[in-house]
Amino acid sequence: MSEAPHLTFDLDTPGVSLGHLVVPKGADCEALSLPVFSCNRGEGPSLLITGGNHGNELQGPIVARRLVEWLPEAQKCGRVIIVPEINPLAVQACTRNTPVDGKNLNRVFPGRPDGSISERIADAISRLLLPVVDNILDLHSFGPRWDCAPSIITHPIADVDLMTKTLRISEAFKLPVTLLWEHNDTAGMFDTWVHGQGKIFICTEFGGGDAHAEALTIYETGVRNGLIALGLVEGMAEYPMFRQQKSGQTLETNPSDQLKSPAQGIFEPRCSVVDEVKQGDLIGILHPMESLSADSIDIRAPTTSIVFAIRSAGYVQGNEEVAILARPLAP
Amino acid sequence: MSEAPHLTFDLDTPGVSLGHLVVPKGADCEALSLPVFSCNRGEGPSLLITGGNHGNELQGPIVARRLVEWLPEAQKCGRVIIVPEINPLAVQACTRNTPVDGKNLNRVFPGRPDGSISERIADAISRLLLPVVDNILDLHSFGPRWDCAPSIITHPIADVDLMTKTLRISEAFKLPVTLLWEHNDTAGMFDTWVHGQGKIFICTEFGGGDAHAEALTIYETGVRNGLIALGLVEGMAEYPMFRQQKSGQTLETNPSDQLKSPAQGIFEPRCSVVDEVKQGDLIGILHPMESLSADSIDIRAPTTSIVFAIRSAGYVQGNEEVAILARPLAP
Repeated sequence: MSEAPHLTFDLDTPGVSLGHLVVPKGADCEALSLPVFSCNRGEGPSLLITGGNHGNELQGPIVARRLVEWLPEAQKCGRVIIVPEINPLAVQACTRNTPVDGKNLNRVFPGRPDGSISERIADAISRLLLPVVDNILDLHSFGPRWDCAPSIITHPIADVDLMTKTLRISEAFKLPVTLLWEHNDTAGMFDTWVHGQGKIFICTEFGGGDAHAEALTIYETGVRNGLIALGLVEGMAEYPMFRQQKSGQTLETNPSDQLKSPAQGIFEPRCSVVDEVKQGDLIGILHPMESLSADSIDIRAPTTSIVFAIRSAGYVQGNEEVAILARPLAP
Repeated sequence: MSEAPHLTFDLDTPGVSLGHLVVPKGADCEALSLPVFSCNRGEGPSLLITGGNHGNELQGPIVARRLVEWLPEAQKCGRVIIVPEINPLAVQACTRNTPVDGKNLNRVFPGRPDGSISERIADAISRLLLPVVDNILDLHSFGPRWDCAPSIITHPIADVDLMTKTLRISEAFKLPVTLLWEHNDTAGMFDTWVHGQGKIFICTEFGGGDAHAEALTIYETGVRNGLIALGLVEGMAEYPMFRQQKSGQTLETNPSDQLKSPAQGIFEPRCSVVDEVKQGDLIGILHPMESLSADSIDIRAPTTSIVFAIRSAGYVQGNEEVAILARPLAP
């Protein structure tokens, strides 16, 4: 019988604590010790920040570590718990799924104490960290071979009051896009589990595969804005500069806004994230590789839209997603 | 006995021809047919343009395909041959090395007719395309998980006259950086082989892993400038806009300009390509993953430098390259 998941310190200790969340060993691997930061300033809002859910999205862990440096001075009340890398095995392998069990950690919530390592990580978080907070901020990015607008996304929530509160706090991050994403594959997601408990879940999408210094500053600014809006720190929220603009917009997207490649070949992006496109505008080109006399295929916008995310130039299969469009959220 | 490498058309045909370079089958795989464009306008300079040498650098193939669209109108004299993807197996696998034989195509030149597939590709190019041109433009980029300044690089060439001519034509591309790169691992490189024949070899480095629409426009502008400088097309060369500037600089780098990670952990980039840094300036931070109380390690500039390339945020091993600095080329 392996040990139960546990924290190496008491979350109720006032002030800053550093320690670990221990995920017990199982048949598939040894116990994991996930570094945890806690800043407990008494009464006030409570927030759990997680990064590294997918191991090939490192923007979140970097921003989380910047907060670990900055919050001890800045946080005035309430409770913030930060786990910069909840899936260290995937981070070290630079993979989306956990290498030991091949599972997507973001599809196994609330996890199982006797499951494989992804399930045990989810179980430890669900059991020990979720109960002590009212808000969760999970730091994702769009993953390799894509570009996406710095954004907060949320899936539709059946509870209208929770949906409204979630959108309002998402917009307060003042990132270029707040996106309501109608998505079919939500079973086992961290957010679905948290929503079921009536808590606020904020999910960032911090750009695409590569993370450079200038982009990281935008993401950090967004998260600071969110902490101000939640009442955890004081300050004046400001839109970060993105593409020479300081502004934000709230959009919605559904499965029909996903453009697919019409054949296999090399995808050439012809527009950029947050571009406004009209019906018929060129989004990208699919180049067959077999012959230069075979016609390249234009991929065009089916309706007036804003480009939320677009694939980087690269080889794609037929019917593979190459762009995600969006429209202003209907009031 | 397999067939010899051959072209499916006659390169001396006037005007535009489209066809294939056939790389014979071998023990490891079937024959490959690489699409080839030829525009023969008679007397004048001659240029071979190759892309997709490494299969995870797709900027080159995209720019090459734009040229295929544009050159039939624009080219006034001489000969241009374009092979957008010389390593289609690696492009389809999205890998640097060729998946069938695991070899780096850019380390097996001039190849062998009876070798593995990478060697047979190199042999077909060396045997059938190189002899008919005086200039070669090989379109690379820096590969996944890096950012690099849009640039032309060249390694030092023993023949001083050829070195001078190569640098002069490289600068005429008017990309943000022209770089003289002192590099130890050059055996079997395409450029080493071409230099040995006294020909001009131009190698682009078109940014890092991701390739988005705006960056592709910079690269295309650079190549058009180069074609103007070579006398193949008419027009006025102009510096493309990069980081709100229109300018170019010629730099040099040697192995001591490569900064390595001091330990394994998460690398956080703290500066951007073409940033000027002084001795002691922060280049990046290495965050150990085991504990939040372990100190993060600052990686600082050893001397006044310009940042040529820097790793994207990500997990790195100890002693792994995280940044390449450069200095103005000594006159």
